[in-house]
Order: sequence, then structure tokens, then C-alpha cells
Amino acid sequence: MPVWKLVLEYDGTDFAGWQVQPRERTVQGELKRALEVVLREEVRVTGAGRTDAGVHALGQVASVTCAGDVPAALRSVNAVLPDDVVVREASAAAESFDARRSALRRHYRYVLHRGPTALERRFCLALDRFPDPARMNEGAAWLVGRRDFGSFASGVEPGEGTECVVERAAVRKRGDFLDFEVTANRFLRKMVRTMMGTLLEVGWGQRPPAWIDDVVASRDRRAAGPVVPPTGLFLVAVDYPDSGPEGR
Amino acid sequence: MPVWKLVLEYDGTDFAGWQVQPRERTVQGELKRALEVVLREEVRVTGAGRTDAGVHALGQVASVTCAGDVPAALRSVNAVLPDDVVVREASAAAESFDARRSALRRHYRYVLHRGPTALERRFCLALDRFPDPARMNEGAAWLVGRRDFGSFASGVEPGEGTECVVERAAVRKRGDFLDFEVTANRFLRKMVRTMMGTLLEVGWGQRPPAWIDDVVASRDRRAAGPVVPPTGLFLVAVDYPDSGPEGR
Repeated sequence: MPVWKLVLEYDGTDFAGWQVQPRERTVQGELKRALEVVLREEVRVTGAGRTDAGVHALGQVASVTCAGDVPAALRSVNAVLPDDVVVREASAAAESFDARRSALRRHYRYVLHRGPTALERRFCLALDRFPDPARMNEGAAWLVGRRDFGSFASGVEPGEGTECVVERAAVRKRGDFLDFEVTANRFLRKMVRTMMGTLLEVGWGQRPPAWIDDVVASRDRRAAGPVVPPTGLFLVAVDYPDSGPEGR
Repeated sequence: MPVWKLVLEYDGTDFAGWQVQPRERTVQGELKRALEVVLREEVRVTGAGRTDAGVHALGQVASVTCAGDVPAALRSVNAVLPDDVVVREASAAAESFDARRSALRRHYRYVLHRGPTALERRFCLALDRFPDPARMNEGAAWLVGRRDFGSFASGVEPGEGTECVVERAAVRKRGDFLDFEVTANRFLRKMVRTMMGTLLEVGWGQRPPAWIDDVVASRDRRAAGPVVPPTGLFLVAVDYPDSGPEGR
């Protein structure tokens, strides 16, 4: 059965997250439904990242297994999909391609905003008290490397393991915005949002930057800061060993 | 009575435009109500540009006449305002300041997007057929100068006049976006959206760039292209003779 690679963009505000759940509006559920309406067959959909309720995506990747030609049907699929989710690209992939298991690394971004904003209110965390980006960057440097990130995880499944390889973790000022960008081979549940809540305590001067190292070393969720809301979080992109047009 | 200068940002999607209308949700109405709730007095509010239903603002300017200190009450005013409108700045202005009559020029932007987009769907016009920016720029050059823009106006009031001084009109590519930016001393009703609809015919190759000159010269609304939807339109900023912190 052919396998297709899809790149999706969505506004997570009105979704109960990526993963199909009974009686909930989910991105995976809407995508599966739209594909089945257009192709008139049952399709299997796997996502690279199981984004939580309210989390957005600029470049979520899904593998879709079905007989029909998804790239040829792309315009129809987008017409059937609700307007808060769009398939940006669709291409043929190798039969071994699995959006989740084949992924090398994921790129996430968490967006902070100085003061209230009307236009960006669905896509950031608006802060009256703006943090110091230099302090946050110094703290974020402690997140880079192959480490146990159990302190930043919620609801870890038994036997799942909490080691991740974080390749990049940095804060960047962009006008009235502050972007926290983090790249890793895998992410644990609520990991980025807990990193952000912890880095905010450093940015506000409540903790020294090197405290981040203590939080990681403790492997204790109670050592880290609070989970920030999903509004500011984006799954930006997912990398694969070879992301050419044939997906091999 | 003191006069205050306010700079506002709003998501126009759920507003029936700027200007107060009976039984409609308008930006001017919400702002007046929030100021009156916080300051406990009647206030007078004038806007620089009467944006239509669905049009957004990054920097609408309002003059507010009231005894209370608006800058001191800014946080409370924003807390009372609905979340799709925010007062970004408030400062004292000269008693002669009138956001509408004192304005030197207004800056508008119309945003086009190549293909569908979930995240930006409220803030652009998504086009399956993307226009050629170089052709559009060549056409837009004919819009610059002191000219009669009656061809681009809807619902002109008797005796209003249709001459405007357009200082800048240009198209700029920004990734999958195309921004049409236009600056003028004044704008007629639906002028930017009609300019955009007309330039699109040039960008799609249906008309030569110099046709824009013919449309202006005709002074005939029927000569221009269609009015595009308000979703992509932003009032970006308004300039005043002296916009220092005291607003004089």
C-alpha cells in the first residue's frame, strides 16, 4: 500500500490536540475524515508529534497509508478540511516511512509577547512583566545535550524513558516578541512548556541561570517551574534522514 | 478639557468596523464603553481612520477628550476591553489635537498569501493563483501622486472630493506573502481594497501595468477591478506633524 508524506499547518486553538479521541475535535481526526471523504477509502494517519490541545503547527508531518493518490487530491482535501487546518505539501514516501518513527528531530518554538496584543493573542503568551532574554539564554544553554529531562515531563508512560538529545535551546528577541526555540530528537509530554515556565523564573530574576542545570540534574518534576499555556507553542518542523520529493 | 492620544491594535474580524453604529459591535463603541467604565465619566472618541467591518489595525490612532488621566488608567482600560482590541500607547496631547483632522498621512497594508493558510487565515487573502509582484509594482507606480481617485472609491459623500495625494504604493514579497503598502494623506471608502482588486488583474496578466493609469484617468468606478475582502487589510500607522511624547 502506498505511503504519503504530508506537511500540515494548523491553528490549535479550537482542537483537542493532534491525536484522535472519541467525541473530541482533533487534527488527526479531521485529516483522516477529509482524506476518507475525498478518496472514498479507509486511510491510516500517523503524526510526527502528538501536539496537545491548543498547540499550533507550522510544519507537523503525517504519514498516510492509502491506495489513492494524495498529492493529486490535495486541493480537494484542503477544500474539505476545516479552515483552521491546511495540508501545505503532499508527496510520495518510501513504504518504510513512518512520520513518528522515521523522524530525526523536531523543532518547537514558544512565543512570548511584551504586553497585551489583539492580533497575536491566539499565538503567544502575553506578559506584562517582560523577562530578560540574555539571562534566559544563559539558562537555556544548560538544556543542550544528551540529558535526562524527567524534570520537564508530565505523565511519563512506564518504561518510556526520559532521556533526550537537545541540539539547540535558545531565546531570540524579535521586536516585542521573544521566541524560545528548541530542537531535540524527541520531546516528552509538556516538555517545551515546562522548559518555558522554568526559564521565565530565570528571565524574571527569581533564579540564577545555572539553576536550570540543578533542575535537570534533580530529575524531579517538582524542581521545575510551572507549565505555561499552549497558546504560544508551535511545532515548527520535523526533520527526516532524507526529505527529498520522493521522501526516501 | 484634556485631550489624549491613543494608539490601538485590533483584530477586525468580529467588529462591524470602527465607527459606532446602533446595535453593532464596533471598535469605537467598545473603546468608549471601556474608558467610561474605568473613568466614570462621559468621554468623546475620534478615530483617524474609519476602518470598515473586518478591517484590522496595527496602529489606529484615536483622540479622547475627558477629565480623567487615560495613560494612568491604561492597564485597567485594557483589562475591561475585549481581547480583540488593545490600547498600545496613551499620551497627553495638545487641546487642538484631533486624530482625524490633525493626521498628515495614513499607512495601509493589504496582505496576500500564496495558497491556503490556517494560521494567517484571518489576516490575509489566500490565493490559489498567485500574481506576479513585478507587474503589480509597475502598475502601482501609476497610483503615486496627487490624483483624482474617484475610480477607486465607493459611496462618496456629496461635496467630499476624491483627490488624494498618494506618497507611496508598492508591492513587496515576504516568503509566501505579498504585501501591498500604500501611504496617502487621505483614503476614500474602500480605496485600498479596490486598488488591490485592480492590481490583481495586472498581477495575473489580464491587464497591462499601464492600464492602472487609464483606470485613474477615467474617474469611473466601473473602470476599476472588484473590491477584495477586508480580511487582508490593516491600518498600519497614522502620522502627525509632531508625534513626540506630549503629542504636540
